[in-house]
Amino acid sequence: MEILDIKQVTNFDHLNLFLMKYIDRADKLKSWIFASRSGSPDIINHLQGIKPLSLPDAVVVVPFHVEMQKLVMIREFRLPLGGYQYGFPAGLMDKRETVEQTAVRELKEETGLDIIKIIRKSPPIYSSAGMTDESMAFVYAQCCGTPSVEWNEDSEDITVLMLSQQEAAALLKTPDLKFDVKAWIVLSIFAETGALFTESDA
Amino acid sequence: MEILDIKQVTNFDHLNLFLMKYIDRADKLKSWIFASRSGSPDIINHLQGIKPLSLPDAVVVVPFHVEMQKLVMIREFRLPLGGYQYGFPAGLMDKRETVEQTAVRELKEETGLDIIKIIRKSPPIYSSAGMTDESMAFVYAQCCGTPSVEWNEDSEDITVLMLSQQEAAALLKTPDLKFDVKAWIVLSIFAETGALFTESDA
Repeated sequence: MEILDIKQVTNFDHLNLFLMKYIDRADKLKSWIFASRSGSPDIINHLQGIKPLSLPDAVVVVPFHVEMQKLVMIREFRLPLGGYQYGFPAGLMDKRETVEQTAVRELKEETGLDIIKIIRKSPPIYSSAGMTDESMAFVYAQCCGTPSVEWNEDSEDITVLMLSQQEAAALLKTPDLKFDVKAWIVLSIFAETGALFTESDA
Repeated sequence: MEILDIKQVTNFDHLNLFLMKYIDRADKLKSWIFASRSGSPDIINHLQGIKPLSLPDAVVVVPFHVEMQKLVMIREFRLPLGGYQYGFPAGLMDKRETVEQTAVRELKEETGLDIIKIIRKSPPIYSSAGMTDESMAFVYAQCCGTPSVEWNEDSEDITVLMLSQQEAAALLKTPDLKFDVKAWIVLSIFAETGALFTESDA
């Protein structure tokens, strides 16, 4: 397969569509459309010979409260779903932040909790690479403190959940809830085994 | 928060942007943009009092080859990334398919393998609900057969990987690979514990 050309086809602030022309394995000219949070997607830089940034768009935190021995999740209003979704604290990286700094800031803003130690950290990994180049770092962290939503922004509507293994299993069985895919995968494993990564081997 | 209005702002075949007006928690009028694979996102139906479909956009399969005792992954060219990504077999649901039928079809097309038994199946869960309403079912399945890419479509460029626990750990440590987020989470757990869901409790 060979990519011939990419052009930005919308001009919004936070998310845009890009149209790509490519040659498929049968030598046919085809097009593909994808969404990007970036005004200059890595693939465009790559085609121009510019080394892409190694930073992800966002950071997702899987927080484990050591003192309470509970997994922390949030129930958050998500505009594209028009309802509440269960997921992990997460947010876009601010300029000049490291992944660790974004993790600390977003966990505090969304849950009031403080990171004690980062246990494991992914490289930039991709949300859904058929439709977007959106990338994130996935961070397992130990945390402490008292859950609070007083640092939420006005566009955020969040409830903090502190889950034991049994509570995780019950949440998964509750009908009609909407889960983020990452939250569903981790929650299912936690509900089954009671264990997550507890020691650093990153 | 209150959603006032949503309008479709592009007109492509497979992916479009939608602009939403809403009132935030401080009573300010704000806008939010998101991408959808659907010409009629669930949130629009919901606002019009139409019950949304309970089918996801796509199905992702976590295949475990019982005879070989290996986790199956694919290395696939992803146009929005301009390179190869490691992920699980997945695809959009065709009209009138069930989740199980899509899982069987996509696993065959992308890897040549056959599903023996579905072990666990998620409800529709969401890829990245800040930017898209894209949803998927996440399916753990036992499979059999000989890996093959002869059923790949012309727009697919796939290599099938059969991974032991040790091979999974080695893959995760290889520098500069691109992983799908779901693949990275499951692969990390498989590399650590050697276990996935092996018995049906769905």
